[in-house]
Amino acid sequence: MRIWDLDTPALLIDLDVVERNLARVARYAAEHRLRLRPHTKTHKIPYFARAQLRAGAVGLTVAKVGEAEVMLAAEPPDLLVAYPVVGELKLQRLLDVAARVPVTVSLDSMEVAEPLARAASKRGLEIGVLAEVDVGLGRVGVPPGKPLLELAQQLEKTPGLKLRGVAFYPGHIKALDDAGLKAISALDETLSTVASQFREHGLPLEIVSGGSTPTLFHSHRVRSMNEIRPGTYIFNDRNTVACGACGWEDCAATILCTVVSVSPGSRAIIDGGSKTFSSDRLVTTGEASYGYVVEAPEAVFYKLNEEHGFLDISRCSRPIRVGDKLRVIPNHICVAMNLHETVYAIRKDEVELELRVEARGKLR
Amino acid sequence: MRIWDLDTPALLIDLDVVERNLARVARYAAEHRLRLRPHTKTHKIPYFARAQLRAGAVGLTVAKVGEAEVMLAAEPPDLLVAYPVVGELKLQRLLDVAARVPVTVSLDSMEVAEPLARAASKRGLEIGVLAEVDVGLGRVGVPPGKPLLELAQQLEKTPGLKLRGVAFYPGHIKALDDAGLKAISALDETLSTVASQFREHGLPLEIVSGGSTPTLFHSHRVRSMNEIRPGTYIFNDRNTVACGACGWEDCAATILCTVVSVSPGSRAIIDGGSKTFSSDRLVTTGEASYGYVVEAPEAVFYKLNEEHGFLDISRCSRPIRVGDKLRVIPNHICVAMNLHETVYAIRKDEVELELRVEARGKLR
Repeated sequence: MRIWDLDTPALLIDLDVVERNLARVARYAAEHRLRLRPHTKTHKIPYFARAQLRAGAVGLTVAKVGEAEVMLAAEPPDLLVAYPVVGELKLQRLLDVAARVPVTVSLDSMEVAEPLARAASKRGLEIGVLAEVDVGLGRVGVPPGKPLLELAQQLEKTPGLKLRGVAFYPGHIKALDDAGLKAISALDETLSTVASQFREHGLPLEIVSGGSTPTLFHSHRVRSMNEIRPGTYIFNDRNTVACGACGWEDCAATILCTVVSVSPGSRAIIDGGSKTFSSDRLVTTGEASYGYVVEAPEAVFYKLNEEHGFLDISRCSRPIRVGDKLRVIPNHICVAMNLHETVYAIRKDEVELELRVEARGKLR
Repeated sequence: MRIWDLDTPALLIDLDVVERNLARVARYAAEHRLRLRPHTKTHKIPYFARAQLRAGAVGLTVAKVGEAEVMLAAEPPDLLVAYPVVGELKLQRLLDVAARVPVTVSLDSMEVAEPLARAASKRGLEIGVLAEVDVGLGRVGVPPGKPLLELAQQLEKTPGLKLRGVAFYPGHIKALDDAGLKAISALDETLSTVASQFREHGLPLEIVSGGSTPTLFHSHRVRSMNEIRPGTYIFNDRNTVACGACGWEDCAATILCTVVSVSPGSRAIIDGGSKTFSSDRLVTTGEASYGYVVEAPEAVFYKLNEEHGFLDISRCSRPIRVGDKLRVIPNHICVAMNLHETVYAIRKDEVELELRVEARGKLR
């Protein structure tokens, strides 16, 4: 079937572009001796996780226990749950996963670590832990220096846990402009200090896990880091282009929409809105525009309601008519994937297979 | 089970509040002789659609054919698809639905109407149509006056279709301040003119369907309108409170989250982000804040990532600790419901039943 014959809205994944993206990052990681542990929150499908593992990933990252359960189908060598796992029900499910593959959890407090350690010990299991350090985002993580060292020391002596190193997420670096590059240098310094402090105190530092898609190809400049866990790089999106980390030709995911209403020369409405794209704005500037229209690049996707996308077509060189199908590169593919029951894997204009987004909505 | 024993994030629906909300609007509609045709996009669950029909709704509204298919389970007397249905695959599915219950579609062009009419005629069916009029939102709909009359005249003479009246959506009225009330008066004038023009031209006007949750209790002031199709009123949300159409006590839906990380006196991170709440901002002001924390009203939900909610707790009178469970009233419940596989129907602190969000992700 040709993509143009699909009912809409339909999320399309170009497998040729995916393979190129996976190969490029695998090559970069190998070149710089970085272990690659992709975050599967972007695609949420074991099919793509298997492709990442085949392309050289050493394991997988997930955000939630529910995602870990789904990703077992990809038969990963091990799993990193890059999220503090809190609550008895989740801990038991986490340990069920850990009974099948080695599991590491990143966390930032003994309030999270202690129940995890108790539950693991009771089941005769050992869970790897990474001490989460806040490198500037102000999300999870303790500050580097004394708080991080104290956390690591406590984790190291807790039975049921095995301290393996540190984790961080440089989500405060959103673009590769001068400020972004300066922030990467600062990150390098911060983590070098962390590494020497860990050595001084005899703390294990097998893993220094970090990275994001925007900073991906600068990872080697953060010299202590030895593991990267990018998510978006498999597909890329309008944010990745905006932050300077890829071009439009590297965007594997588009959302095929149909024009359902037109005010000639001014406005077109497409059949995808916030329930199809998400209402995430452009991350670099906060601009309230929602995608790049491949077949009409001059169109401005200036607004969305739940099921309506508003395009300003006043500057479009081609006519836009009711029934036209247009592909749109979304701002943020991770949240868009999560809105679709299935996606279509394509090559050129041909649909190769339909895939269920298996970890979609696995919030717990 | 008590709600506090649920794993998180979990979307809770308070049935006592739902019943009060349904009764209040049914009473208002009866008092003003308005037919009530709730939009099911808010709850996406036949269980709630049945409750709406029991409470006096004359039929149901949906946005997508996929939602219509799901809502057949509620056995509605008829269905309004308040969206231009475009594309042969969708039309055939729409006609399958129309073979079971009478279906009306709102649309704004002959480009949408003609394929619908042809497909209906071929199946020996007749589809009701409402001519969509743009009353100020600038979304779908033709302008009132000549364009609307011409569309209605063409629809009236098209075999396979039965023109039943007009539809509109006053989504440009976001708050009940002076400007909002003035806009409601303008709407009344616009639709009175439409009605007299339809009479003059001998066009059928059995249905004048409009309304939104913010303008709901002012519907009687738009005198030509005889059908209202609010969606959010069943649950309400932070937007509904902000626009002045209800109070916090009328919000039936909360999202139960767990605190997973705390910087004492400054920040708490909860286990729900844009994949749990959506990134919809507050609609009245565009403010980038994402919910009202029931157990800590002084907390400011100032940011979200995919799985992280950021609370500023600096002004909280109660201590916030890792493991605490907090209920949050989301900005926009319609998009939040769409992110959850299941929701919990509760009364007071007790879970009464778990419901699958059956029309979730029915984008086509």
